[in-house]
Amino acid sequence: MRILAIGAHPDDLEILCGGTLAKYAAKGDEVTMAIVTDGAAGSTELAVEELRKIRRQEAEKSAKLIGADFTWLGEPDELFFENKESRFKSIELIRKAKPDIIITHAPSDYHPDHQAVSQAILNSSFVATLPNIKSAHEAHELVCPIYYMDTLAGVNFQPSDYVNITEQFEMKQKMLACHASQIEWLQYHDNIDILELIETTAKFRGYQVGVKYAEAFQSAQYWLRVKPERLLP
Amino acid sequence: MRILAIGAHPDDLEILCGGTLAKYAAKGDEVTMAIVTDGAAGSTELAVEELRKIRRQEAEKSAKLIGADFTWLGEPDELFFENKESRFKSIELIRKAKPDIIITHAPSDYHPDHQAVSQAILNSSFVATLPNIKSAHEAHELVCPIYYMDTLAGVNFQPSDYVNITEQFEMKQKMLACHASQIEWLQYHDNIDILELIETTAKFRGYQVGVKYAEAFQSAQYWLRVKPERLLP
Amino acid sequence: MRILAIGAHPDDLEILCGGTLAKYAAKGDEVTMAIVTDGAAGSTELAVEELRKIRRQEAEKSAKLIGADFTWLGEPDELFFENKESRFKSIELIRKAKPDIIITHAPSDYHPDHQAVSQAILNSSFVATLPNIKSAHEAHELVCPIYYMDTLAGVNFQPSDYVNITEQFEMKQKMLACHASQIEWLQYHDNIDILELIETTAKFRGYQVGVKYAEAFQSAQYWLRVKPERLLP
Amino acid sequence: MRILAIGAHPDDLEILCGGTLAKYAAKGDEVTMAIVTDGAAGSTELAVEELRKIRRQEAEKSAKLIGADFTWLGEPDELFFENKESRFKSIELIRKAKPDIIITHAPSDYHPDHQAVSQAILNSSFVATLPNIKSAHEAHELVCPIYYMDTLAGVNFQPSDYVNITEQFEMKQKMLACHASQIEWLQYHDNIDILELIETTAKFRGYQVGVKYAEAFQSAQYWLRVKPERLLP
Amino acid sequence: MRILAIGAHPDDLEILCGGTLAKYAAKGDEVTMAIVTDGAAGSTELAVEELRKIRRQEAEKSAKLIGADFTWLGEPDELFFENKESRFKSIELIRKAKPDIIITHAPSDYHPDHQAVSQAILNSSFVATLPNIKSAHEAHELVCPIYYMDTLAGVNFQPSDYVNITEQFEMKQKMLACHASQIEWLQYHDNIDILELIETTAKFRGYQVGVKYAEAFQSAQYWLRVKPERLLP
Amino acid sequence: MRILAIGAHPDDLEILCGGTLAKYAAKGDEVTMAIVTDGAAGSTELAVEELRKIRRQEAEKSAKLIGADFTWLGEPDELFFENKESRFKSIELIRKAKPDIIITHAPSDYHPDHQAVSQAILNSSFVATLPNIKSAHEAHELVCPIYYMDTLAGVNFQPSDYVNITEQFEMKQKMLACHASQIEWLQYHDNIDILELIETTAKFRGYQVGVKYAEAFQSAQYWLRVKPERLLP
Repeated sequence: MRILAIGAHPDDLEILCGGTLAKYAAKGDEVTMAIVTDGAAGSTELAVEELRKIRRQEAEKSAKLIGADFTWLGEPDELFFENKESRFKSIELIRKAKPDIIITHAPSDYHPDHQAVSQAILNSSFVATLPNIKSAHEAHELVCPIYYMDTLAGVNFQPSDYVNITEQFEMKQKMLACHASQIEWLQYHDNIDILELIETTAKFRGYQVGVKYAEAFQSAQYWLRVKPERLLP
Repeated sequence: MRILAIGAHPDDLEILCGGTLAKYAAKGDEVTMAIVTDGAAGSTELAVEELRKIRRQEAEKSAKLIGADFTWLGEPDELFFENKESRFKSIELIRKAKPDIIITHAPSDYHPDHQAVSQAILNSSFVATLPNIKSAHEAHELVCPIYYMDTLAGVNFQPSDYVNITEQFEMKQKMLACHASQIEWLQYHDNIDILELIETTAKFRGYQVGVKYAEAFQSAQYWLRVKPERLLP
Repeated sequence: MRILAIGAHPDDLEILCGGTLAKYAAKGDEVTMAIVTDGAAGSTELAVEELRKIRRQEAEKSAKLIGADFTWLGEPDELFFENKESRFKSIELIRKAKPDIIITHAPSDYHPDHQAVSQAILNSSFVATLPNIKSAHEAHELVCPIYYMDTLAGVNFQPSDYVNITEQFEMKQKMLACHASQIEWLQYHDNIDILELIETTAKFRGYQVGVKYAEAFQSAQYWLRVKPERLLP
Repeated sequence: MRILAIGAHPDDLEILCGGTLAKYAAKGDEVTMAIVTDGAAGSTELAVEELRKIRRQEAEKSAKLIGADFTWLGEPDELFFENKESRFKSIELIRKAKPDIIITHAPSDYHPDHQAVSQAILNSSFVATLPNIKSAHEAHELVCPIYYMDTLAGVNFQPSDYVNITEQFEMKQKMLACHASQIEWLQYHDNIDILELIETTAKFRGYQVGVKYAEAFQSAQYWLRVKPERLLP
Repeated sequence: MRILAIGAHPDDLEILCGGTLAKYAAKGDEVTMAIVTDGAAGSTELAVEELRKIRRQEAEKSAKLIGADFTWLGEPDELFFENKESRFKSIELIRKAKPDIIITHAPSDYHPDHQAVSQAILNSSFVATLPNIKSAHEAHELVCPIYYMDTLAGVNFQPSDYVNITEQFEMKQKMLACHASQIEWLQYHDNIDILELIETTAKFRGYQVGVKYAEAFQSAQYWLRVKPERLLP
Repeated sequence: MRILAIGAHPDDLEILCGGTLAKYAAKGDEVTMAIVTDGAAGSTELAVEELRKIRRQEAEKSAKLIGADFTWLGEPDELFFENKESRFKSIELIRKAKPDIIITHAPSDYHPDHQAVSQAILNSSFVATLPNIKSAHEAHELVCPIYYMDTLAGVNFQPSDYVNITEQFEMKQKMLACHASQIEWLQYHDNIDILELIETTAKFRGYQVGVKYAEAFQSAQYWLRVKPERLLP
């Protein structure tokens, strides 16, 4: 199976679905980790140009840990909008990866880029299947099922599906630890220890389903997206 | 795996989850079909005593088609309430069957017995696990996950899970056809051809998930009930 | 058309759907106003026995204003529960009135009797249609559509339907004014001028739909209840 | 009464509200069928230019069957966004048709163009009423009530209103049959027989309200849009 | 201010609102901790009679830690139903405590007793204010605002209000630790370390609102219950 | 405390939160009233240029009544969209005001500008806190809690919080009366007496919480926005 996970910023995938991606990878599925923006706003000390480089390196390092393919779109952080230009960029991303399933942000998450990416991917993953819409790659053949990741701190999110990541939690921590620049930044900007937050969240989601660590998802309820089998690992 | 399906009246299980039960049975799971009331109100011509016998025979015949165990509680039709007496009857039902999963009515379904059975089973399936609550059978060891069946005609029901019953649809029809007394009654009382209704519903639920025939369910969202794996077939 | 409006206490129907009943009556429909409890808790000065008589007189006087039939169940105020006994009382009420449509309390309203009446009527209006459930009157032939009235002060209520009562608002005021005992009591117990409250509510619901005065309803979403035509006046 | 039905693509209106439009037309109301995009992505064999022509002809032929006015906006298929340009195009559409009621897509439907058209029409139908917003046509005088059509296969849609189309179902089939190019395409792209899908959907919605065939709608819940009378046929 | 917290079983209040009660007490409010059932089903080794005594002692010890009044209703564990008898018991509880605010279980919590207590308290706290309903104590003068506590593991619960319990978290742990019998039982029956669970939950709720430890609540949305001031500490 | 209230048009803040702003001001908080568009579409007789001036004067006069700071963005009425340009304008607005709390439109309100402002402010108030996003003013240090104002006529709005404005209602009326141009216009376009509407609405919201006049709000449920203390006056 081919999984395309799309995060707005470097570190979003690790925080919100790192264990699930590790689990897919461990059972032999092909995972692609795609990052939409360059994350260049995530610092108070590093300038945009420098930070952009660092964040890409951090993200690539993390993807390597589970053997995932890595795609970097490099859009300007904090300024992602749904429009014709971003639709075609998203179409190319999907046509290139040709996934069986897409994992991306919930439309109700806290960050404007998360919301815009969620909407853009939902929309372009449909258009990507139409041969008459021409772009560099050939049309994808599948209108992909989409799973929305948990929101940050689970605010305003009712899960429809869970993944037991007890055996992958250590890997999830390692993946997130690659994003060294952000551990300091999130402490500064959001007043949180992000490694502590993912442990608490994974435990909380775990208590909800009777395992040590879990990640939570919502299946996107649109025609052609819903399937009568489980696609999560 | 042991599946306990609990319908308020003879024919409810066939209409709402017959294909799913057939699918469980076909892959070797142990299925119990339990009927709470005697269905004695489901006629305009047959008297209560006679109808009660007929309906039990019809239900047993249907269960036999898929090799399911059959349990008949025989409560008076249309008068099922949640109280101490019905709680202990439900506890016995569950302790005897010791299921891994329970399938029963949605609390939002149209019929008062459906609503009362839904609530009674949710409640007693918890209490059934406590050794200090004494009854004829020993406490069950598992607070069972519960899947609510679709409502009649899908009114006010948003599915969280589907089962592809394309290969079981013919069996579902045969099971329902065992309830000969009801085919006429439902035409009279509700103005419907019930065999036609289950075909349209299974097709409609099928269109929603891209298969020919499907049945729809909601997983009951309560602590100790939700699991990070798929339990439906 | 035959309309059966069922309130938990004398004055509930006037407050929550008096204008709509007046409108039905004005166009020649047969309206029955049924009161479930005796309202004997609605005073701080009058004893139970005396208040019971007064409230029945007040309610009858109000029904007479629009030429409605009047039914008094006389159950003890504040102690209405759904059980076998109350189910049969409700069945008789419905079988006697044989309505085309039922109007009653929303299940989300503030008062325990309102919630219990709402549930009891929903349930018994189904059972009332089954010939094998025997009682003094013959089975009703129709599983009635049900409209839930607005909640008090509209708390936690999203209307699905409105009735323009601009021409009936004066009559609604007169009907409520018949309940002289309650005008004082509600001032004492709930700190409100009930005549002022119904005017504000009718204006507010009116602003929502572009008329001077309106009443708001929710159609009960259950199979056999929903119709593809408007049944409200 | 003047009805403006606005579909994102040729064939959407036939699939989702064809029976209702036929019913309006049959009772003498003036119906306009407006198509926003050129539908040029709906094929795997025909090129954009050729398909655009074919689809317009198909849509016109269908509108003619019920004597509806026909409006073709010709926007590029799969690339409709809400912005200043599309707002003015929508304003002109509405100011020209001056409808009493608008029927369009639900915001929760599966297709990006459906969602964008839904939002654009909601917004521009308000702005269209303001004389100080200048365009070729004069301001419309009514902030129109809007009814959202069912979603494809009814996914994630809770109807608030239904229309009995039993007598119009045959016409609905004929209207859809005009879209010959799409019958093949939808079989290819979405793996469905669209004529079969509309029959199953109309039957399913019919079972929900006790008629043979029905179409389902949601009334848009915004101030100035909601009315205390039924506007659907 | 007088706070009446009502838990279905000994230990429920500590798990779900112990920090909040400690905070009320610390600022000088009068807190009553009332336990509805005897908790006699919460063991696999101790018999009913013995466990009942132990659990009462554990609960009293915990209440003493924050100087709360303690009320023990002693209803049979796992068999609490809403009926006339339990309504009067609840009325007495409320009339005796005469609270300004009530805290109790959410109606959506996992345990049948939690659901039944929630409904019973909502209902009887209204009836308790009516002088014509006679009982041993005088009518209460206030229809109390009600706050529902979080569900176990937060399943199916969307908070409307939070309390920062960072300074009270240690006390909450001590209070729960008084319930020594249950720490072992919950490990056995539900496979959880309850002290660990409350820490994870308090941290998770804390992350949602930017503090170290928090407890979550929902305000009950019924007329006469909602206030335009904050009543939580 | 610093409060930033952002309305789409001159008069929106007075209608929807004037009493609350007056209450903040009265207790010494610093209030800024910001108006996004020029309101130039709000007339049938005055031309755009003239109306723009008048409306600004009216809005300033109203702000002065409570000693609020006044900010005028002057965007074209009826044509506000969320895009890169409007994001930076909103960022500047927030960075300049540096509020502790933001009050703005609900995303479910009836007017396209209300919806667009709501979304734009939610998004830009996050981005405004990031030092690497450069603009004329320095980054704000707080991701502000946001309270959404009631919708017009309360359509489709479930309040989470209320403010008692009994003592401020007269001031609210005076503030709205400053918008003389609109009193006539709203009578013409929406067929309402706006002064009457705000009185009815304030009374209705008051009845819901037991005070004479109230305003209703929803707290925006996003991470970093929700606080465990009350921030409304």
